[in-house]
Parts: sequence; C-alpha cells; structure tokens
Amino acid sequence: MSINASDLLEKVRAQKPVIHHLTNWVTIYDCANIVKVFGASPVMAHAKEEVADMASIASALVLNIGTLTPDFVDAMKLAAIAANRKDIPVILDVCGAGATKLRDDACFEILDSVKVNIIKGNASEIARIAGENVQTKGVDAAAVEKDLREVAASLAKRRSCTVVITGKEDIVADESRVVRVKNGHTMMADIVGTGCMASSVIGTFAAVEKDLVSASVAGLVCFEIAAEIAARDAKGPGTFKESLYDSVYSLDSETINRMQRIED
Amino acid sequence: MSINASDLLEKVRAQKPVIHHLTNWVTIYDCANIVKVFGASPVMAHAKEEVADMASIASALVLNIGTLTPDFVDAMKLAAIAANRKDIPVILDVCGAGATKLRDDACFEILDSVKVNIIKGNASEIARIAGENVQTKGVDAAAVEKDLREVAASLAKRRSCTVVITGKEDIVADESRVVRVKNGHTMMADIVGTGCMASSVIGTFAAVEKDLVSASVAGLVCFEIAAEIAARDAKGPGTFKESLYDSVYSLDSETINRMQRIED
Amino acid sequence: MSINASDLLEKVRAQKPVIHHLTNWVTIYDCANIVKVFGASPVMAHAKEEVADMASIASALVLNIGTLTPDFVDAMKLAAIAANRKDIPVILDVCGAGATKLRDDACFEILDSVKVNIIKGNASEIARIAGENVQTKGVDAAAVEKDLREVAASLAKRRSCTVVITGKEDIVADESRVVRVKNGHTMMADIVGTGCMASSVIGTFAAVEKDLVSASVAGLVCFEIAAEIAARDAKGPGTFKESLYDSVYSLDSETINRMQRIED
Repeated sequence: MSINASDLLEKVRAQKPVIHHLTNWVTIYDCANIVKVFGASPVMAHAKEEVADMASIASALVLNIGTLTPDFVDAMKLAAIAANRKDIPVILDVCGAGATKLRDDACFEILDSVKVNIIKGNASEIARIAGENVQTKGVDAAAVEKDLREVAASLAKRRSCTVVITGKEDIVADESRVVRVKNGHTMMADIVGTGCMASSVIGTFAAVEKDLVSASVAGLVCFEIAAEIAARDAKGPGTFKESLYDSVYSLDSETINRMQRIED
Repeated sequence: MSINASDLLEKVRAQKPVIHHLTNWVTIYDCANIVKVFGASPVMAHAKEEVADMASIASALVLNIGTLTPDFVDAMKLAAIAANRKDIPVILDVCGAGATKLRDDACFEILDSVKVNIIKGNASEIARIAGENVQTKGVDAAAVEKDLREVAASLAKRRSCTVVITGKEDIVADESRVVRVKNGHTMMADIVGTGCMASSVIGTFAAVEKDLVSASVAGLVCFEIAAEIAARDAKGPGTFKESLYDSVYSLDSETINRMQRIED
Repeated sequence: MSINASDLLEKVRAQKPVIHHLTNWVTIYDCANIVKVFGASPVMAHAKEEVADMASIASALVLNIGTLTPDFVDAMKLAAIAANRKDIPVILDVCGAGATKLRDDACFEILDSVKVNIIKGNASEIARIAGENVQTKGVDAAAVEKDLREVAASLAKRRSCTVVITGKEDIVADESRVVRVKNGHTMMADIVGTGCMASSVIGTFAAVEKDLVSASVAGLVCFEIAAEIAARDAKGPGTFKESLYDSVYSLDSETINRMQRIED
C-alpha cells in the first residue's frame, strides 16, 4: 500500500486544522501540545453546553476515556453527534478498556450510539472492545501479531470503521486492508502519554485525509520517527519527552521518506 | 511612560504573593509553575465550597475559562466576590471567547456580576468581548494594530478596567493610557500555554503593584524577555519550554533594563 | 534502623505494581510520570462508578486533596473502602490542609471513615491534621525539627498509621519509630509538584513493602537522591525537572547506598 506520510504532514502544516478533544486530565496538555507542534490547532472543551458548538468548528474530534465520568461520556456523545452531522472524523481512544465495567460500558455506549470512525487502543484494550479472548501476555510476538491483525480486521468489519492497535508494531485495519507500522522506540513506553498523544496525532492527520487508514498510518509514522530521533540523544525519559516535541516540529519529508517502515 | 519592570520583579520575589487560580485543565500545571519560578506562590482551587476562603488568603485571583463548565463559572463568581471584598485584583483570561456561545455568555456574566480588574485575551477574543467587529485575519499588521489599540482603550473605558491584548506586540490599556510591549519570540506561539501563563504572570505582578497598567506591562516584559533568552539555544518547542522556566528563574535587573521594549 | 532502599527499588522495578490515584488536576501528569519512571504502573480514575473496581486491581491507593470537591472526596472514600477490603496501603496527601475549612473537613472525614495507612504533608499541613499549634515559620530549624518529630509520632499513635512530614529534612514516624531522611535539594521547592510526586513515590514503595516506615523512607531516599543528581547540571527549575525523570530512571543500587542519608 502506498501512503505518502510526508505529503500528509505538509497538508497538516498548511491547513492547520482545529482538533477538538474530550480527553483525560492526565495527558491533556501533552495531547494539546503534540497537535500544536505538528502545526495544527488543538482545542479542549468538555462542557455539554458547548461541545456541539466546538465540534462544529473543528476538523476532527478526539475522544479519550482515560479519566471518564458518566457526565463526560454524555458530553462525548453530544460532541460526536455534532461531528457526525458535519462529517468530520471521530477518533475514540478506548484508554483503559478492560480495567473497569464503567470503561467497557462507556466504550460500547459510545460505539453503539454515534459513528466512530477510528477506534484506537493497545492490544488488550482493543481485544476487550472486539469481545475476543486474545492472549496478549506470555505468548510470543509472532503469535500475538497474527491474532491482533485478525482482531483488528474483524472489529473494523463489524463496526465499519478503522481500527488502530498500537504496540511494538502498530496495526491499522479497515474493512479491506491491514497495514503495519514498524517505527517507534521502546522509550515511548517508559513515559506516560505517548498512547494518548498517538490518538491526537491520528486525529490531526484524519482531519486532512479522508482515507483513514492512510491518515492513521501517516500520523503514526511521523510521530514514531520523531520518537526514534528524540531517543538518539536522550539521557532518559525526561529529556526524551522534551526532544520528542522538538523532533516532531523539525520533521522533514526527506527524513520521513527515508525512515518510514510500513508493511502490509 | 516609565515602568520599572525589574523593580516589580524584585517585589514579587520578596513578597512571594499567593496567586489563586480557577483555570483550565490543559495548562493548569504551567500556570502554577510559571508563578512558582517567578518566586510567587500559586494555589489552584475551584470547589464552590472553598473558593471564597482561598481567595481571601490570596493577593490576586486569576480566572481562565479555557475548559469552563457552568458550575465552574459559578465558582469563579464566588471567588471574585471574595476577591472584590478583599480588594485584591481579579484577572480574567477570556480564553476561547468567540468560539462558542457558552464562552461568550460566561465572560459577560462574570464581567456584569463582579468587578474584573484586568481583562486579557488575544486580538479576536478581546474583539468579541468588546462587541466590535475587528478584522484580525487577512489585514496587514499596521491596520490591525491601530484598530486593536482603539478596541482595548474603548473596552477599558466601558468596563473601567485594564485591558491586555497579547500578540506579536502586546497592548495594555486603561481608561487613560495605552502602552505596547514589543518583547517576545515567535516560538511562544508554537507551544500550548504561553497565553494562559501570561495571565498568571500578570496576576502575579498585579499582586504587588496597584497600578495595573504598570503591573501588566512589567509582567509581560519579564515573561517575554525570558522567552527571548530561552529561544536562543532552544532546538525546538520542547526545549524552549523547559528553558523558559530556567530563564524566568534566572532573570536579573540588568537584563530586563537592557532588553525591555515598551512603547507608548 | 536498617532500611535497604536499593532493594526496595529493585522490587518496584520487578513487580511493576499498579498505583491507583485520585489526585489533583495540577500535578496529575507528574504523579503518573514519576510512578512510571520508577518502573511501576500508574492509573488515575476518579469516577465514583469505577474507583472501587480500579482500587481492587491496584497494589496501592494514593489520595491527594490538592484540587478537591465534595464529590471527589466521596469518590476517595469509596476507593479507600475497596483498598481497605483488599488490604492494600492507602496514602493520603493532605495537600493544602489548613488553607480552607473544606480541606480540613475533607481530611478528617476521610481519616475518620476509612483506614489511611500513611498520612503525608508538609509541616504546617500535618500540624493542622494533628490538631497541634506548631509554629512552622519564624522559628529556627532546630526548634521546628524537635516539635515536628513529636507531632509526627503523636499523630501516628493517635491514628495508628505512618506519618510523613516532608521538608528540608523529612520525618517518617509510626507508633514506635521516628526516622529522618536528609537527602534532597533546595531546587525541589522551586518547582510545582515535588510534594505530590513524593506521595506517589511513597505509594509506589508501599505497594511492595509491608513495613510502611521502610517503604516511605526508601521512596523518599530514592526520589531525593535522584533530585540531588538532577540538580548537578540543571540550569534552573525547567531543566531540573526533566533531569529528575532521567535520574530516577537511571538510579542504581550503588548510587543509592553511597548517597542515602537516613538517621534515627
């Protein structure tokens, strides 16, 4: 599959889309700032009284249940309805799915009541949403990989959406395709926030590209190449994180084209 | 106009005023930390049950509607009433005014029901609060500048307060004066949080200086000189932001007096 | 008293305990990230509908009242009841106790209705919770030190728990012992968040060590040695904070054993 990540990055920088978030209180700054350093315009708003208005001036909507409450889920649905009406992409980060009944219920309630265009999570979160019993610990990587590709593809078909599973390699699937992104660095798992930021980045690219597999793959490729660059001189997770913002900001087409590792 | 920014910075460091915030969840850490590195003492509290108590032990109150809800606006009013009673300055950052009806309504509700001493926003936010139809995009800088100075002065007169418009150059106006601050660096617009931090800094200086034009100008001058210094060796927005805290912390009178660019 | 901080650090890294937080919105990212760079697994969840479920999959519960509301206090109690039932340690950071009636009431309500295993605060906060009239300003350090050790020991006895007072030197007391930690660096007081992070670190160590004095001391020793290392090359509070994450991440047994300063 031919995905031009560098072209999409240029589109983000040229169009500066507004990305509306209802996200968690832990990584809310990081989600906003990663969108900003990619050249887009983040906005965070969660009051039921304004989410529809805000979604209607945005080019993508990112929902993240990381510190959800029932009220917050209601606001997410109102925002998503406005996004659906305007036909802008809705990304749902099923952060913590599987950990509590509230999180599982919230995910299904959102997925059943509004159109979610991209579902994103790690292996165990997506497995839970897919209703499948995938063993994501204690098995070898190859076996997990195979299972997860099927899980992603199957969930994508059932929900008629794009599914992104992040991990050592990322899986992006829609109803007809499965693509893997092999960029990234282990240090991404040593800090809080890279998973949430990945969803914001995917939302940012989905704002400028209608093909959501291409958008998701391009966003992940750019974010993870930046992480690889940031990790080179980082002395640890603190300096890595600050450098990550620098390297996203400085990312150029030549670097992306040379470093990207996308596989069918 | 003669404003001694370095003297006011020394006053902040000596008095260590408590700055009570009701602010947004995106930049709440940055607002607290910028106040801290300036040598003052930030406190964040938003429960209706305690905001009056907290405002009464503070020396300034900073309100920021960045992620408001109706409940939060109620708490802001209670805090402001306590601040008014104690005669400490109230700063309102009209963050996102113009984006949704909820934000506009909240600003007017606050402005109409309590005394706000300093209204702060960017060009389009202040234009909305001023009820004026200012074209802030697609016109040349000179034309905007002239308009904005008039907008600021007019709003200051109508609301009997100080008005701060931040941007490439900042405008600070009260009922009789208009001052411009020409410090700063473009990289401030490349990260999330500098606008909110500016309001916290203005609040910090307003806590030690009754002349609110002087306080606002001095705060902006110090913050923006620190940004200019931070930008010198920054490799991008990540390292810039960390250096910003360092350079605020290390700011000295000689540097301020040499670098400050204030114009009537 | 013989406390092997480096062994406990290795236990944290090996067991990767889940540390459930109900904390404040200012330093929530820092609390999560410090737990992460220590090698454990932070989770933040505050909805009444899920806190019991989340606490039941955690190995320690950290409560911090920094930006409390009455609803939030209710959620804290529900989480603590679940933690008590599972017999995992509950740490309460009495952040801001003494500042408002709401904070004092919340602390006493929590302490009276659930089992708190470790109470943590600075000198004036703990004095307020102890109901003692300790003069923590304007008196010399020696006098304060003596008073505070007695305050900590007395509160520990009355509440049958461990009490931690952080400051230039930290005091850790239970019903029979008082230990002081003399590590740390003045720059810790120049940024927002080190107090909250200390509570999260104590919770992390309490998750792997049943002797809560040992756990608290070991956590403080490791955190504060990392701070001493971070301060060496820091240009100010911004670079200090990023380096703090790096130095926690890289901390080794030899360094801890050489640098730790624990006194009875």
